[in-house]
Amino acid sequence: MQRISLAHGEGGELTHRLIQDLFIRSFGHSEHTQFDSAILDIPSQTIAVTTDSYVVNPLFFPGGNIGKLAVTGTVNDLAVSGAEPHVITAGFILEEGFPVKSLKEIVNTMAGEAERAGVNIIAGDTKVVEKGSVDGLFINTTGIGVMKEQHRLKPELIQEGDSVIISGTIGDHGVAILSARQELGLVTDVRSDCASLNHLIHDLLGDIKGIRIMRDPTRGGLATTLVELCEDFHFTLEVDEASIPVRADVQGACDILGYDPVYLANEGKVVVIVDSHDEQKALDMLKGHEAGKDARVIGRITSCHVQTGKLLLRTAVGTTRRLNRLSGQLLPRIC
Amino acid sequence: MQRISLAHGEGGELTHRLIQDLFIRSFGHSEHTQFDSAILDIPSQTIAVTTDSYVVNPLFFPGGNIGKLAVTGTVNDLAVSGAEPHVITAGFILEEGFPVKSLKEIVNTMAGEAERAGVNIIAGDTKVVEKGSVDGLFINTTGIGVMKEQHRLKPELIQEGDSVIISGTIGDHGVAILSARQELGLVTDVRSDCASLNHLIHDLLGDIKGIRIMRDPTRGGLATTLVELCEDFHFTLEVDEASIPVRADVQGACDILGYDPVYLANEGKVVVIVDSHDEQKALDMLKGHEAGKDARVIGRITSCHVQTGKLLLRTAVGTTRRLNRLSGQLLPRIC
Repeated sequence: MQRISLAHGEGGELTHRLIQDLFIRSFGHSEHTQFDSAILDIPSQTIAVTTDSYVVNPLFFPGGNIGKLAVTGTVNDLAVSGAEPHVITAGFILEEGFPVKSLKEIVNTMAGEAERAGVNIIAGDTKVVEKGSVDGLFINTTGIGVMKEQHRLKPELIQEGDSVIISGTIGDHGVAILSARQELGLVTDVRSDCASLNHLIHDLLGDIKGIRIMRDPTRGGLATTLVELCEDFHFTLEVDEASIPVRADVQGACDILGYDPVYLANEGKVVVIVDSHDEQKALDMLKGHEAGKDARVIGRITSCHVQTGKLLLRTAVGTTRRLNRLSGQLLPRIC
Repeated sequence: MQRISLAHGEGGELTHRLIQDLFIRSFGHSEHTQFDSAILDIPSQTIAVTTDSYVVNPLFFPGGNIGKLAVTGTVNDLAVSGAEPHVITAGFILEEGFPVKSLKEIVNTMAGEAERAGVNIIAGDTKVVEKGSVDGLFINTTGIGVMKEQHRLKPELIQEGDSVIISGTIGDHGVAILSARQELGLVTDVRSDCASLNHLIHDLLGDIKGIRIMRDPTRGGLATTLVELCEDFHFTLEVDEASIPVRADVQGACDILGYDPVYLANEGKVVVIVDSHDEQKALDMLKGHEAGKDARVIGRITSCHVQTGKLLLRTAVGTTRRLNRLSGQLLPRIC
């Protein structure tokens, strides 16, 4: 078997073999894995649930592939909500003719990343569609996490003066994908930052009481994520442009292409809003992890309980401008 | 806004509006709905989890659409495992240019079917890919159900003489899809049987102690489902071909096209293996529901604890032949 055929998706003999030979072999380290529906005991009655489809183009890129992205994206979604990622489901939509070798590589990457993050892939599904009806391979993952009472986030305590921390450089994933596409003649050494942050976030929430809320600034970038926080929690945030960590080659690519790194996707970064008294402790903790070594304070909350929360950017030249959500088309299929 | 654009999938302003105006409006009857990640309390520590991608072609067909199928399929997967369906997530992959009107109709159908089944759609995701990179719209759903101790299935009690019941006519969904495609010049009035069976199954499990195991015979049809039961639980099953309920027009379409209805997909049927002493009670209970009105006993377990379980079909002419899983290509994109 070298290529996926339509019959691999029909639920008969070939589907059975694909599941047995590939998925169960890679994911089947869990007693719960049934790859149909799974029954499991969870260590809490309060759970977090998240779902995402991954359609990234290309499927393989510097720093990862669509499978790694699917696992880390789901793990991080759960972790930033204060949940411990517990299990993941995976649904594959495959194009007829897709190389089995590539599928194996993607599935093995998922299994490895799941093990690293400490989650089990417990249920799955495969569908195959005719050539031309899907671009190679899409993956949907749903994650279930367990809420630990002592790790609950406390957005209700958000107050003026709270610090905003980003765990590292922004825009790496966006530029890595752009570069991998070679569409714009861009050549860089930038690798995607895609990584599971649950261990880092676990340590952060375990040690630092003043954490108010966290987000992973993926699609739409840091700016869109911060705008959503401002609106959802009714505060105004002032961010200092010069303090935002951006790799020189990412900034260079942005300058050439006319992009702003605050709108580029990240897949291994977390934004943390924290009591300013805990700011240094949080920074130290982050810097102790590889994924947080470039952490920085980038801004502060300047007013709370406002009708419409705003994101303000203090630029390098001293002016202040309001940032909005990403609008219109920037980078389709970034994740 | 008449058509979906790439920017609807980039996580910025247009994604925000699409979620607010369409998804939250349709699905947002639940306090838990956040359409990003959801946090919820569940009434049990034992849960069932299932995931499926839906790629049916065409998106609209007699008796339903892809959205109805996504909800009923997920609800039924959970219900046949003995779980009460509780919440569903929905991930949409849309083709650039997809008509918003069709999306609305599909989303509203999902919301209606979820309400009927008594489940909440709690989290979602939308991705948009360039024209030609996906055929219209694919949906992935993941369902979480709650296991009730008293509703646990008892496959360990399977014994010789146990009855096999099918809840109604088979092959309706398969023929409805074929007919909707108009590919083979087939014209019928057959409608898909797609329906949520969780209320029917709830009643069945609540009243009848002798239920051993259940399955929903979807992709691969009744035969593939029964072969899997025989193999997984090591019994041999003899099914009487003449007793399998098949609509005359479904049989007619099969005769013309050379299909066997036992391999055609069903989306609103359940196979029940039950203690023969409870057979009549189970039949009566099924016939009390619209979805079970054509229920029939179709066979019996003839031996247990065998190395390799077999599915045997006693044909109308009195011979017996062994059936295998669906092999090779029959009907791609049936669900």
